[in-house]
Amino acid sequence: MIAIDKKILRARIQSFRPEFEEKLATLVGHASVSMSADHGKQVRACAEAAAGYLEKEGAEARVVETKGHPIVLAQSVVDPKFPTVTIYNHLDVQPADREGWTSDPFRLEKRGDRYAGRGATDDKGPALVALFAMRLARALEVPINLRFLWESEEEIGSPNFAEALAGLTKGKPGPALRTDSILVSDTIWPSAKKPAIPYGLRGLLGFLVRLKTGDKDVHSGTTGGAARNPIGELCALISECYDARTGRVKIPGFYEGVRPVGHAEKKGLAESGFSRAKFQKAHGLKRVRFAEDAKLLSAIMAAPTFEVHGIVGGYTGPGVKTIVPHQAEAKLSCRLVPNQRPADVFRKVKAFIKARCPEAEVHFESALEPYLVDPSGPYIEAASDATLATFGTRPALTREGGSIGAVVTMSQLLSKNVVLLGLSLPEDGYHAINESFAWSQAAGGMELFVRYFAELATRGPAR
Amino acid sequence: MIAIDKKILRARIQSFRPEFEEKLATLVGHASVSMSADHGKQVRACAEAAAGYLEKEGAEARVVETKGHPIVLAQSVVDPKFPTVTIYNHLDVQPADREGWTSDPFRLEKRGDRYAGRGATDDKGPALVALFAMRLARALEVPINLRFLWESEEEIGSPNFAEALAGLTKGKPGPALRTDSILVSDTIWPSAKKPAIPYGLRGLLGFLVRLKTGDKDVHSGTTGGAARNPIGELCALISECYDARTGRVKIPGFYEGVRPVGHAEKKGLAESGFSRAKFQKAHGLKRVRFAEDAKLLSAIMAAPTFEVHGIVGGYTGPGVKTIVPHQAEAKLSCRLVPNQRPADVFRKVKAFIKARCPEAEVHFESALEPYLVDPSGPYIEAASDATLATFGTRPALTREGGSIGAVVTMSQLLSKNVVLLGLSLPEDGYHAINESFAWSQAAGGMELFVRYFAELATRGPAR
Repeated sequence: MIAIDKKILRARIQSFRPEFEEKLATLVGHASVSMSADHGKQVRACAEAAAGYLEKEGAEARVVETKGHPIVLAQSVVDPKFPTVTIYNHLDVQPADREGWTSDPFRLEKRGDRYAGRGATDDKGPALVALFAMRLARALEVPINLRFLWESEEEIGSPNFAEALAGLTKGKPGPALRTDSILVSDTIWPSAKKPAIPYGLRGLLGFLVRLKTGDKDVHSGTTGGAARNPIGELCALISECYDARTGRVKIPGFYEGVRPVGHAEKKGLAESGFSRAKFQKAHGLKRVRFAEDAKLLSAIMAAPTFEVHGIVGGYTGPGVKTIVPHQAEAKLSCRLVPNQRPADVFRKVKAFIKARCPEAEVHFESALEPYLVDPSGPYIEAASDATLATFGTRPALTREGGSIGAVVTMSQLLSKNVVLLGLSLPEDGYHAINESFAWSQAAGGMELFVRYFAELATRGPAR
Repeated sequence: MIAIDKKILRARIQSFRPEFEEKLATLVGHASVSMSADHGKQVRACAEAAAGYLEKEGAEARVVETKGHPIVLAQSVVDPKFPTVTIYNHLDVQPADREGWTSDPFRLEKRGDRYAGRGATDDKGPALVALFAMRLARALEVPINLRFLWESEEEIGSPNFAEALAGLTKGKPGPALRTDSILVSDTIWPSAKKPAIPYGLRGLLGFLVRLKTGDKDVHSGTTGGAARNPIGELCALISECYDARTGRVKIPGFYEGVRPVGHAEKKGLAESGFSRAKFQKAHGLKRVRFAEDAKLLSAIMAAPTFEVHGIVGGYTGPGVKTIVPHQAEAKLSCRLVPNQRPADVFRKVKAFIKARCPEAEVHFESALEPYLVDPSGPYIEAASDATLATFGTRPALTREGGSIGAVVTMSQLLSKNVVLLGLSLPEDGYHAINESFAWSQAAGGMELFVRYFAELATRGPAR
């Protein structure tokens, strides 16, 4: 056992606060929006700044090129005989225009215990938590090797991550990537009082449906009744694909392969501290689809979805412009659960839509496989012990509704021992306006991580 | 009979061309978009320029204020004993951003016989045709009094027209508005070879449906399945309101009061020269709702519609941003036919939507009553004779799919003798990008109008 004096450790962590703030402000200041073609430079600048921080902390760091945005790779190897843990975070962020934000999204603003800014909680804050945890591990002489794998394309489904990793590993992890386990910090607790270790992630299938019925918008008086309406037809297609009120997908075969959730698992998930009231409040939702907590929980954690992210078509300015539009496009995705396969689901969705409207174009956009592991392994156990020591409570074992493409890739190419040890809270506003991260979560996270490293060092690699 | 030498008349009209072009360029140059809050000055500037033209032509002209955009009122009264005809046009235009236009929409561009620019055909070109027709009438000493009523709010449903007219007439048309008949030139021929006099117009009910399900867009992983999707629900509502593939409205009672079209009328409409192929080509439509001409014709001329003009909601930038949106809004309208009433239809639509989704807001936007007259009156007969003399063919008697709110108002307040003598062609692109007007139609229109004036002068007022 590695002796950790709680009081000294916590005082030390508190002393990091000004530096943490400064570094977070710098990273948030780089508008690393991977989705935007105009932000390539800022994505790179953010990766370079992060690599600089890792280097300054004593790690060997480098910026690795991919076909898209770069990956930051770093290592702090003390002794090859020590166990090695790889920490995954991402440095890219969701888009954010100024609308709805109470401050500039790309300028960190301190609000009491909270730091507001795009990327604060997803996932720049947690990345910096890992950086400071390395400092603590070295100060406490924890016998562990650390690697950092920080990518810049998580928000667009990590399209180049697998190829880049395969290139680096050439079949099996070489010295630069060899690891005993992986810590991923990009997930959310059910509530501030309930830490969580998710043992599953939903997959994702992103796609576009486009329908063009003419060359130009035309007069709804002169042509209305005879002319087709692409928005109306797209609405019909969407309504045929799913029942928006219940979320039930109506595409034949969509639910094929969905792994049933047993009684024991349901019971476990129900203990995650989820409550409808808290959920609605955290996400600013007026009403949700179901009244019962268990039904909501299972809809998020264990069921696939069909979601409309946006519709573009027709006149969107002030008033009502009486045109018949000539095209419409819907941005859609399905969150998927084990054992659905994105490629198979896409085939079914496309066939269903094409059968109803042959002219509709159905464009594949992105795919992430769902992920599920046994929640009773030794790494999750070590993380659970570290959580208890840090937060005074055992974590809930949950399944995350979101998707992290890199997790599946890393579990296939680097190590099956992946632990999802997120630090974000529902009220942080993942992907939402006024995203923020709390210092209390950052500080707790630093302690949690160094305790987890110590647990791993004590237990030794479970090869 | 007033003797008109065709050759001399036509040569004279040809000599107007440079001046017509110059004046049309000036009017098109004023971006008189009544729908836009930012274009008030340009709407006024256009009205003032037009009033100036009328004055220069020898009419007494003035710009009359309304609660909204102004009306241009002018008169050329030669002798109170002569019959008086009031010519209605509108000077406001549909919005036009640069997208899809091959030239600046607010800078007239000459392309052979055609003039391209927003408002060229709807309705600035036809207004100028009336101006030059007045010049011809005076030159030929046609014993007729002319009035001009050019409004600036037609494209937003003439919300202040009735009140302004009522104010000017104070119950019955005073000297400034007294008229025997009204000529409205804001309608479209079925094809370049087939002039038309519509004896009916569809009405219009414009409305918005807005659904807000939360305070902000949220993460579709973290909340998807539990969170409601306002776009999805709006699509469902729209699909419940109507079958977009056939256009059939499913709202109970929607078709109540629709006047059946008898065999004789159907036959008359069918003679208008409508053909599916020409219609599709003129409007750039890939496919239309029905294969048979008669069905298409009746869908435009004699049946009501439910139309989606635009949907706003969710993410509309590049790629797929995996959010659950928090609100969505659809811009909608119904074209109505006799004897549907906009207020009654709105009540039914709102009740239908509210019953399915109580949180949906249904906002009334605008209403125009449908219009239908007996096509066999003496004024339509005079117009038919003038058309035959000018174009060598009798006009088709049609029903227009569009709506002109002012027609109903004027027929109630000024005179029942309304004749719709439009000059636009399907290929002109009413409300569409690259709107244009042909010189041949302008020249023909000048001849048609002066011949019509001469017919009226010969027949005398049918009081």
